[in-house]
Amino acid sequence: MTLSRLEHDFLGERALPEQVYYGIQTLRALENFHITGIPIKSEPLFVQALAYVKKAAAMANRDLGVLDPTLAGYIMQACDRVSSGALDGEFLTDMIQGGAGTSVNMNANEVIANVALELMGKPKGQYEFCHPNNHVNCSQSTNDAYPTAFRIALSNKLVGYSQTLGELADAFAAKGDEFRDVLKMGRTQLQDAVPMSMGDEFRAFATNLREELLRIADSRSLISEINMGATAIGTRVNAPAGYAELVTEHLRTVTGLDLMLAGDLIEATYDTGAYVQLSGVLKRTAVKLSKICNDLRLLSSGPRAGLFEINLPALQPGSSIMPGKVNPVVPEVVNQTAFYVIGADLTVTMAAEAGQLQLNVMEPVISFALFTSISYMTNACRTLHEKCVVGITANKEHAENLVRNSIGIVTQLNPVIGYEASAEIAKEALRTGKSVYAIAVTERGLLTQAKWDEIFTFENLIRPGFIQ
Amino acid sequence: MTLSRLEHDFLGERALPEQVYYGIQTLRALENFHITGIPIKSEPLFVQALAYVKKAAAMANRDLGVLDPTLAGYIMQACDRVSSGALDGEFLTDMIQGGAGTSVNMNANEVIANVALELMGKPKGQYEFCHPNNHVNCSQSTNDAYPTAFRIALSNKLVGYSQTLGELADAFAAKGDEFRDVLKMGRTQLQDAVPMSMGDEFRAFATNLREELLRIADSRSLISEINMGATAIGTRVNAPAGYAELVTEHLRTVTGLDLMLAGDLIEATYDTGAYVQLSGVLKRTAVKLSKICNDLRLLSSGPRAGLFEINLPALQPGSSIMPGKVNPVVPEVVNQTAFYVIGADLTVTMAAEAGQLQLNVMEPVISFALFTSISYMTNACRTLHEKCVVGITANKEHAENLVRNSIGIVTQLNPVIGYEASAEIAKEALRTGKSVYAIAVTERGLLTQAKWDEIFTFENLIRPGFIQ
Amino acid sequence: MTLSRLEHDFLGERALPEQVYYGIQTLRALENFHITGIPIKSEPLFVQALAYVKKAAAMANRDLGVLDPTLAGYIMQACDRVSSGALDGEFLTDMIQGGAGTSVNMNANEVIANVALELMGKPKGQYEFCHPNNHVNCSQSTNDAYPTAFRIALSNKLVGYSQTLGELADAFAAKGDEFRDVLKMGRTQLQDAVPMSMGDEFRAFATNLREELLRIADSRSLISEINMGATAIGTRVNAPAGYAELVTEHLRTVTGLDLMLAGDLIEATYDTGAYVQLSGVLKRTAVKLSKICNDLRLLSSGPRAGLFEINLPALQPGSSIMPGKVNPVVPEVVNQTAFYVIGADLTVTMAAEAGQLQLNVMEPVISFALFTSISYMTNACRTLHEKCVVGITANKEHAENLVRNSIGIVTQLNPVIGYEASAEIAKEALRTGKSVYAIAVTERGLLTQAKWDEIFTFENLIRPGFIQ
Amino acid sequence: MTLSRLEHDFLGERALPEQVYYGIQTLRALENFHITGIPIKSEPLFVQALAYVKKAAAMANRDLGVLDPTLAGYIMQACDRVSSGALDGEFLTDMIQGGAGTSVNMNANEVIANVALELMGKPKGQYEFCHPNNHVNCSQSTNDAYPTAFRIALSNKLVGYSQTLGELADAFAAKGDEFRDVLKMGRTQLQDAVPMSMGDEFRAFATNLREELLRIADSRSLISEINMGATAIGTRVNAPAGYAELVTEHLRTVTGLDLMLAGDLIEATYDTGAYVQLSGVLKRTAVKLSKICNDLRLLSSGPRAGLFEINLPALQPGSSIMPGKVNPVVPEVVNQTAFYVIGADLTVTMAAEAGQLQLNVMEPVISFALFTSISYMTNACRTLHEKCVVGITANKEHAENLVRNSIGIVTQLNPVIGYEASAEIAKEALRTGKSVYAIAVTERGLLTQAKWDEIFTFENLIRPGFIQ
Repeated sequence: MTLSRLEHDFLGERALPEQVYYGIQTLRALENFHITGIPIKSEPLFVQALAYVKKAAAMANRDLGVLDPTLAGYIMQACDRVSSGALDGEFLTDMIQGGAGTSVNMNANEVIANVALELMGKPKGQYEFCHPNNHVNCSQSTNDAYPTAFRIALSNKLVGYSQTLGELADAFAAKGDEFRDVLKMGRTQLQDAVPMSMGDEFRAFATNLREELLRIADSRSLISEINMGATAIGTRVNAPAGYAELVTEHLRTVTGLDLMLAGDLIEATYDTGAYVQLSGVLKRTAVKLSKICNDLRLLSSGPRAGLFEINLPALQPGSSIMPGKVNPVVPEVVNQTAFYVIGADLTVTMAAEAGQLQLNVMEPVISFALFTSISYMTNACRTLHEKCVVGITANKEHAENLVRNSIGIVTQLNPVIGYEASAEIAKEALRTGKSVYAIAVTERGLLTQAKWDEIFTFENLIRPGFIQ
Repeated sequence: MTLSRLEHDFLGERALPEQVYYGIQTLRALENFHITGIPIKSEPLFVQALAYVKKAAAMANRDLGVLDPTLAGYIMQACDRVSSGALDGEFLTDMIQGGAGTSVNMNANEVIANVALELMGKPKGQYEFCHPNNHVNCSQSTNDAYPTAFRIALSNKLVGYSQTLGELADAFAAKGDEFRDVLKMGRTQLQDAVPMSMGDEFRAFATNLREELLRIADSRSLISEINMGATAIGTRVNAPAGYAELVTEHLRTVTGLDLMLAGDLIEATYDTGAYVQLSGVLKRTAVKLSKICNDLRLLSSGPRAGLFEINLPALQPGSSIMPGKVNPVVPEVVNQTAFYVIGADLTVTMAAEAGQLQLNVMEPVISFALFTSISYMTNACRTLHEKCVVGITANKEHAENLVRNSIGIVTQLNPVIGYEASAEIAKEALRTGKSVYAIAVTERGLLTQAKWDEIFTFENLIRPGFIQ
Repeated sequence: MTLSRLEHDFLGERALPEQVYYGIQTLRALENFHITGIPIKSEPLFVQALAYVKKAAAMANRDLGVLDPTLAGYIMQACDRVSSGALDGEFLTDMIQGGAGTSVNMNANEVIANVALELMGKPKGQYEFCHPNNHVNCSQSTNDAYPTAFRIALSNKLVGYSQTLGELADAFAAKGDEFRDVLKMGRTQLQDAVPMSMGDEFRAFATNLREELLRIADSRSLISEINMGATAIGTRVNAPAGYAELVTEHLRTVTGLDLMLAGDLIEATYDTGAYVQLSGVLKRTAVKLSKICNDLRLLSSGPRAGLFEINLPALQPGSSIMPGKVNPVVPEVVNQTAFYVIGADLTVTMAAEAGQLQLNVMEPVISFALFTSISYMTNACRTLHEKCVVGITANKEHAENLVRNSIGIVTQLNPVIGYEASAEIAKEALRTGKSVYAIAVTERGLLTQAKWDEIFTFENLIRPGFIQ
Repeated sequence: MTLSRLEHDFLGERALPEQVYYGIQTLRALENFHITGIPIKSEPLFVQALAYVKKAAAMANRDLGVLDPTLAGYIMQACDRVSSGALDGEFLTDMIQGGAGTSVNMNANEVIANVALELMGKPKGQYEFCHPNNHVNCSQSTNDAYPTAFRIALSNKLVGYSQTLGELADAFAAKGDEFRDVLKMGRTQLQDAVPMSMGDEFRAFATNLREELLRIADSRSLISEINMGATAIGTRVNAPAGYAELVTEHLRTVTGLDLMLAGDLIEATYDTGAYVQLSGVLKRTAVKLSKICNDLRLLSSGPRAGLFEINLPALQPGSSIMPGKVNPVVPEVVNQTAFYVIGADLTVTMAAEAGQLQLNVMEPVISFALFTSISYMTNACRTLHEKCVVGITANKEHAENLVRNSIGIVTQLNPVIGYEASAEIAKEALRTGKSVYAIAVTERGLLTQAKWDEIFTFENLIRPGFIQ
């Protein structure tokens, strides 16, 4: 790689390889930041969103007469190339950087400037014709361009996540239908409670996750508030009158998203509340998924010394030493993903709390945490859906036997013989190992065979009605 | 204290002091749970809500013919006495208990039963006339009565919190008006950025906090979904047909709250999503308050070796050794409250994740965490408002001097002389200690005195317009 | 309450009730801080430690000639009264305060000064004879007196905690002996693994917790490093030469603790590392306790539709609707305590991270979190020990039946017939419901009855030897 | 890629590309786990450690006669090739997997078996000559092989981290020497406190970080406890007598680490305490680094409207809009790394709490979190050292001016004129803007010029002695 192109900034001059589109400020960022080894390009939606922002800015600058229309046209064309993904390889800045996103913004400014220069037929680095700061970044600051691009990328990323999560919920709902007539013991505090339908149990998983779709939609709406035109610290300094509103309008068109200009640009420039809220929603879903996976693992425990009400698909041998062992590997991997996401939420929380005065400089780690969490959650939902839920089968007979043999069915007797008499039967059953029927009907004659039969139909066990 | 009253449950018989209204199951809870030493009565809204739930249940049971109207009337009257706060002293169960709230529910059932007995003219403990389980708890389970009461209490508690938070935001907004014409240096990354109005800085604090009021309202709406009539694990077992809908209707009337019956009672009985969401909102506000208090501490730092743009009210001598030192004690106490609340959010998260199958048995610690967080946040907001914000004054002259002496005003020159030339001036100013004016106008003649004067009016510094 | 005593500080003059021993600065703190409602006196060991610090300081000041010996004597006598607990009621400052502990330090200084005045026969408030700052606080700063007292209190509080935790471990060990010959199925990933002794399972709980005693000892050693003599920010300003070393020596004597003077007083004055470490140890133990309690709840699940290998003591009826239900309420309350402590660790983490320059002003919330966590953990360990572990019984026959009926015993065949043949048997057993014996010996003749008998003795199942 | 090699396990038969060394179980893992996209090979030390474990096992198996010496020799040779890094590309399993590490263990078993086969001149997959389970995994279980390899990798990884952290501490210490005679204002609670040496401030950073080296050493010692020979759930099933002790001995030799066999293998097999402890240590260091970086950012704030006591090296232009702005980008990136690590500690905490019965299945996410945290921390320390600390310069004159102009120097007068008189001076200085000198000496004549001069020498300000 020959270093043949010279660029300068106010810290001095540096040589760059001729072929790269990024410039001196990106070069410095590459030298300064080596924490994760994961570059910005690993989030193509972010690169795309940066290009959207720059394009809309060029349009507004052109309209307001602060950018020459021909130059604006080249910049817009360059933005289209970048948003197509063709230049992703130029976005090499590490996901965690100092500088509140300046390096990422300059990476975009420099790449777009050089692509525009190329379109003009000029050599790279001839910034007098198209300057990263004066032209591509015109009427912008990192303080507005970076968070706006971040929000657009998040919004788009949430679409795929919602879709995948919704499909997982649908898969649970389908199992809810399939297991409608599987009678099983409900449990509270891991103790036998009262009978229920396994279908209801799985349908509840669907309900539980579908609620998340509404919360994600809330989050998308909060992150749709942008601060374009705020420029430095929200003062609108260096932006022409009307710019903020116009660029927002153009950006709505460019992205197809329902973006809104914040009412208080000073506040919007440092506020990270929408990220905290979104991270909280991701965490909430992680908590629910983890609980559901814990349940799947409990329900499939065994095969001989566990609950064994359901079977998960066997995906791989489960032990290097215990032959024939098959483990609930998919719920396990989802649990672990959830722990990761819950940890990442703490990262976001701390980063948000660390904002100072007119800016929160910790936004890059917030973006790293949120992008990663959404990716992992999407992967986990898809895996759970495709590799596990669709293949779950019920051990119907075993589950029903557990009910018939249980003490918990005594609850059904409450309205007929009262809580205290029922409790006496339960106590006796536990002590002696006898069945509720034997004690209640045969021994104590507390109710007739006919009443017993009325109460303990399959239908009344699985979907209880009120019998007094 | 004479133990003169005997009660029994299926574990045996126990003596109770004659004067207490609680019964044997509460007694056992008092013996079993000694973690926090903080009793349920420390949340009077919770005791009140339990009584509301029991009253609405009695009404529905009466309407549906499963409770004798006279008995129902006594129970309702007893509930009114409890919800008035007169019996708060009987609610002694520790805030953290095992049993998923059964002890709290039974505490309420027993107290109400004995108050009802008293109203009937019967001695305490004569449960054949009014039984804690068969009558007071009729058509209910801890699984529905406890979370419903918890949600009602939360909803009511949030009213006071919102009010207090809103008043704090208003106080910041008032300071925003007061400081409208105080010119100061804006800062990003603690480095001098561009000038701004101190009024905008304080108004942004108001904006920042007012957004929280909407999030709290969202949370109140989520926790308004209740599961009365779910009874054990959401099966509706032992509840008469139509009960769930009717009791919800009565509870709406009794509480005056806009409560809604959950669509999926199985799910609603174990789901803790609404608590996680509310806790997340409390955390978000804590994060914002902490950031704001960090700012107040930064801005008031000094008096001689700090930023010293504002003065906080002097509330107490700040040191046992350093004479005359006054510290920002109120922001400091708010920071600490925020850290507590953020910690409590983790407690809620872990408790929520620990739900299993048809119930989340960890709800008591969730209630402890949420009640405590709301109380502390309310206290912190009131303290910050009354003891600090209202008394803040601006060091107008000092703040303006910092601007006039700054290098950051060079940004205003960008549209006129370009980013690179401006950067050269900044670099020179930093190196030599000279002023931007001296370099730009006097030495380099990059703009005329007239242009300089046009750009650097007070008005344009504090509320920048676009000058090319 | 008559306000009859006037006191002043540099903010002005205030009236105090005659009978109180605290003074004007405590009064201001009481007015300023209303977050938790929990006063310092709720930690008597902290009040005691403050008195120890003040006594040792008086001794060192006397020795070095900066405090009149007679006056020093009165102060020492006053400290003894305070450390006896007689004045606890005067320590009313809220646990969370701003000011980095100045209010607590001044509360101690004022109470001790007034007790000393009383001992001299002077009226309260005649500080010319014994002044809270000049005499009681002589050669001290809040920056050293407060953290030193905090560390002494922590160290003493850990003694009781260790003791209680050790007793819990012993109780598990005793069960380990008791269940030595209970054969049960070991489980990994909730799937049946290989047989084991229930005694080993319980002994492992003991091992697991006993390791914590060493970690607590480590923590006590870290918090034994104190910074007396650092005075303001660790500069030793206003302290006579040799004071730091001498006061540390006296404090060792007064407290009986192995205290050490920090080598770098500047660092020691702001460093909160020892608290973070201690909090981490508390969290680690909480994590372990939570895991153990999860196990106890799993192992006692049932009675008919769960693992049901052990019985926990029945402490209270477990449901308001399900008769005879008994829940694992004590493990549940311990789980919840663990979640609280894990949350509190986050509070400590954030508070520690918020230190700035020469001080960490967030120490009060650290002290609140640590004191509370240690108290709750101590309570939880005692409750688990006394109300649960000692009464656990094994369902020996049921547990052994689960083993005999298991597929997991096939692992024992690996060295004899190899992993793949064993896996085939396991697969067949799972598919058909047949026993391992039937397939391996009867059907496939893979080993003789004699070999089978050699391998599957009770002794070899419960404590496996190597049989090839 | 031609699929030309057939392999089978008890779930069926699958084709593999001829050239790959991994086998069918790895193939299944690759299909099942797609969460992070980050493969095991990204931690070469982990791959190396797996090979060490397998080698030591082969040695012990050979010695005890359960593995043919020739075969053992081939396996050992294969292990050497793997530990050299030559086969890293075969370790493709995702960092987060279900199955408690079984996939990683089998990945190692399969690769080593096929390398051994190659060494024997056999085609890949001819497992009758060298079998992944029967031979490579002989006398092992994932339950012992996986955590042992994990611990060895951690231990080795901590060496580099300690080294880098120590060098950072040394760099701070060197600055401590360099700035020995820079007088500056100490600050508590961001308020001016008393004068100090900037050298002491930087030396304290060194002290603060050097303490971490001891904590890391503690952690290494805890993770040196291994459970080789535990086999399934710690029962030692299928391992010949004496194996555990012998393999540990061999592993000590192979790795050069001071490894120890756990005393209670049942407990050691599920215990994750050492990981929680290590994660806590990483978090503690992160907390300290974040505090130090906050300080560096505060001290370098300005240049005109901040503290500006030090200058950080200018690494890159700090703004896309504000010319000449240079930001503290390195401290900022370290803060963000710290937030990541603190979040990862929560992931570890939750994963540790999720252990159940005889195993903690969440170990893979623990390994992911710990490996990542150590890498990021190492990178952050190196960056802070090389890109920031070594280049810090002091603004000596400005810092000293802040002291001379301060009110805080009044503390030095306490021993001479008392706290109350000093406080009066401070109050007056704050109100009027006058200097302490003017009020104390000129106006009030509270001390003579000579006494003033004695007290306020440079030497006494920067390293105060006791002057009465």
